Amino acid sequence: MIISQLSIAPVGEGTSLSKYVKIAIKALDNHNIKTKTNDMATVIETADLETLFNAVKDAHNAVINTGAKRVITELKIDHRLDKEVYIGTKTKSL
Amino acid sequence: MIISQLSIAPVGEGTSLSKYVKIAIKALDNHNIKTKTNDMATVIETADLETLFNAVKDAHNAVINTGAKRVITELKIDHRLDKEVYIGTKTKSL
Amino acid sequence: MIISQLSIAPVGEGTSLSKYVKIAIKALDNHNIKTKTNDMATVIETADLETLFNAVKDAHNAVINTGAKRVITELKIDHRLDKEVYIGTKTKSL
Amino acid sequence: MIISQLSIAPVGEGTSLSKYVKIAIKALDNHNIKTKTNDMATVIETADLETLFNAVKDAHNAVINTGAKRVITELKIDHRLDKEVYIGTKTKSL
Repeated sequence: MIISQLSIAPVGEGTSLSKYVKIAIKALDNHNIKTKTNDMATVIETADLETLFNAVKDAHNAVINTGAKRVITELKIDHRLDKEVYIGTKTKSL
Repeated sequence: MIISQLSIAPVGEGTSLSKYVKIAIKALDNHNIKTKTNDMATVIETADLETLFNAVKDAHNAVINTGAKRVITELKIDHRLDKEVYIGTKTKSL
Repeated sequence: MIISQLSIAPVGEGTSLSKYVKIAIKALDNHNIKTKTNDMATVIETADLETLFNAVKDAHNAVINTGAKRVITELKIDHRLDKEVYIGTKTKSL
Repeated sequence: MIISQLSIAPVGEGTSLSKYVKIAIKALDNHNIKTKTNDMATVIETADLETLFNAVKDAHNAVINTGAKRVITELKIDHRLDKEVYIGTKTKSL
């Protein structure tokens, strides 16, 4: 699986962002992918890039659709081909 | 336009990454989008998210296709709706 | 408190990075700061920037000291002054 | 030299950030380090981590001192020990 880290935040809509995080997570959930949100980002597990990018696009657009005038989205993809990895695999090996 | 910042790097293929940067840039260039590479990342200007994600997917896959066993891709999207922005706009206002 | 997200990884030392993650976490732990590691990064809670940067410097140098020839360290700092925030605060409000 | 990528932005102070970018760059300039600002970040060249962290701390605090209530700072450090690298080296090899 591809493990990714996503954060989406509007700029200029006040300092409280939890409303937008909820909206983004709801959009991800529509894609039936495994996600785990921590204090700084949401970790996502997907079988392929296509599924990931579709989910990220929907989450980004969901925040845009709140009327936010500037949105910063950050995605870090860790794509490993030598080993099958899932959410939880990396922290288990620590 | 949407202004983004992209970096793609294999892990475990040696310390020299310029070969992979060239491959990623070549893949981006096939999409006829404006890009500008600096010492740490490539800045990309696209009209929409669709075009951006298609280009990033191709660049990521081009590095995967070299045989790299683990690839880290990082994308930061700055999507502004209150003002038309291009590559060069932000540095000009400094 | 300042909430940050840290990842430290050597480039060119193979695809398995868990050994280096352990070394970095051990270095952070010497600073008696609260940390929580997820699949993509370690979240850190510190009272000030000074403490954070000292801990990050030690963790980065600990990975350098393994003999790694190229190390990429990524730090994202979320510094909020309008509200007292701790590890767990942000996910609780979701 | 250590090559880094820095971005500092307040959240909740409007969508226009160029004022804050200027303040951060001015703080970096006080450290007599080489910097090069692009559309998404500022690339920094420093001899060591100490110099880098002192400069980043000043730049972060300069944005805090404008009265911003939440500031996000992102730093990516590329520390290479097998080869001497400067700003411009990496793009020249492309």
